[in-house]
Amino acid sequence: MASVDYPEPVRALIVHLKQLPGIGPKSAERIAVWLLQRGPDVTGPFSDMLARAGSEVIECGTCGFFATEADGCSICDALQRDESSLCVVEQPTDILPLERSGAFRGHYHSLRGRISPLDGVGPEDLRIGELLERLRSGAFTEIIVALSSDVEGEATANYLAEILREFEGVAVSRLAQGMPAGGGLDSADELTLMRALQGRTGLR
Amino acid sequence: MASVDYPEPVRALIVHLKQLPGIGPKSAERIAVWLLQRGPDVTGPFSDMLARAGSEVIECGTCGFFATEADGCSICDALQRDESSLCVVEQPTDILPLERSGAFRGHYHSLRGRISPLDGVGPEDLRIGELLERLRSGAFTEIIVALSSDVEGEATANYLAEILREFEGVAVSRLAQGMPAGGGLDSADELTLMRALQGRTGLR
Repeated sequence: MASVDYPEPVRALIVHLKQLPGIGPKSAERIAVWLLQRGPDVTGPFSDMLARAGSEVIECGTCGFFATEADGCSICDALQRDESSLCVVEQPTDILPLERSGAFRGHYHSLRGRISPLDGVGPEDLRIGELLERLRSGAFTEIIVALSSDVEGEATANYLAEILREFEGVAVSRLAQGMPAGGGLDSADELTLMRALQGRTGLR
Repeated sequence: MASVDYPEPVRALIVHLKQLPGIGPKSAERIAVWLLQRGPDVTGPFSDMLARAGSEVIECGTCGFFATEADGCSICDALQRDESSLCVVEQPTDILPLERSGAFRGHYHSLRGRISPLDGVGPEDLRIGELLERLRSGAFTEIIVALSSDVEGEATANYLAEILREFEGVAVSRLAQGMPAGGGLDSADELTLMRALQGRTGLR
């Protein structure tokens, strides 16, 4: 007897959903069924939006954040930002969290990744050439390196520190490392505690 | 200063993703970014599939499982199923798990829900009329009520037991209640243990 399964369009939709980050086979099935029980009134506009976002959203050629041809880049085109500070991040998605902190009002530069020999990602695969070009324009007097505090982020930061030596008048710093806000000592790992001790700051 | 946010198509896509079951704001943002970094090669086919599934997939008018106009229903149209047994479930999504158990090879009937006064769902909102119609055809000699073992599922099962009285020659049963496979006593709740005790079966 032929085994029972969902009709082909349902199975194909599940395949698409399963490839999304964080979506396993069970979630994909649940989401597909939820969508199809709601029908074209929900799937139609969703499908249109997905196609439109996919074709309209581009990477800003300057900073690497999300932009559209029509509206440009909301960061690079902003009028009242600090034109002298540049914050280097790994991914465009790192920009909004920094922005929401309210502690930085300069410009950003997404590298589109970090050096990772195991994944075959070298410096030439990152937007480092574009970074040097921006710096050579001479507008920036401060660079903040805001990369992940893991091995690959550290390696990338060290690489940047090396090649940024040519910009002698530019202050280059990195994010502080230490205890996360609200974190108790018992929940911190050894490396975090070690760095927090090493980087201790005067209390009075 | 205007605050920085994603371009409008990105925000709109996040809104669509957030409404999916099990997808919170953080997941929606992560999925949207993942999709847009892959671009039209991924979003295009995904969008097409979503629209096609939404417009092609219908509910089988007989059993309530997913079907398509073109292919019909893979259960109702199957040639080698047991034509005398009918299994009543709440949702079309309950059918495949039962089918995978391999313990039932008859036909199915999805009620499209269960009686739930709190959600305003009464018997008239369910596919109970369709169920009675199928039973009156006289083909079925056995009905298995496979509803959830919670308060609303129980209430619906009791309601069905009542209205199925008119079919005197038909055997009506429900799923056994007891310990789940692989479950230890320490992980079972009191109600499950009570039912497992009450429904104990001879060992020798």
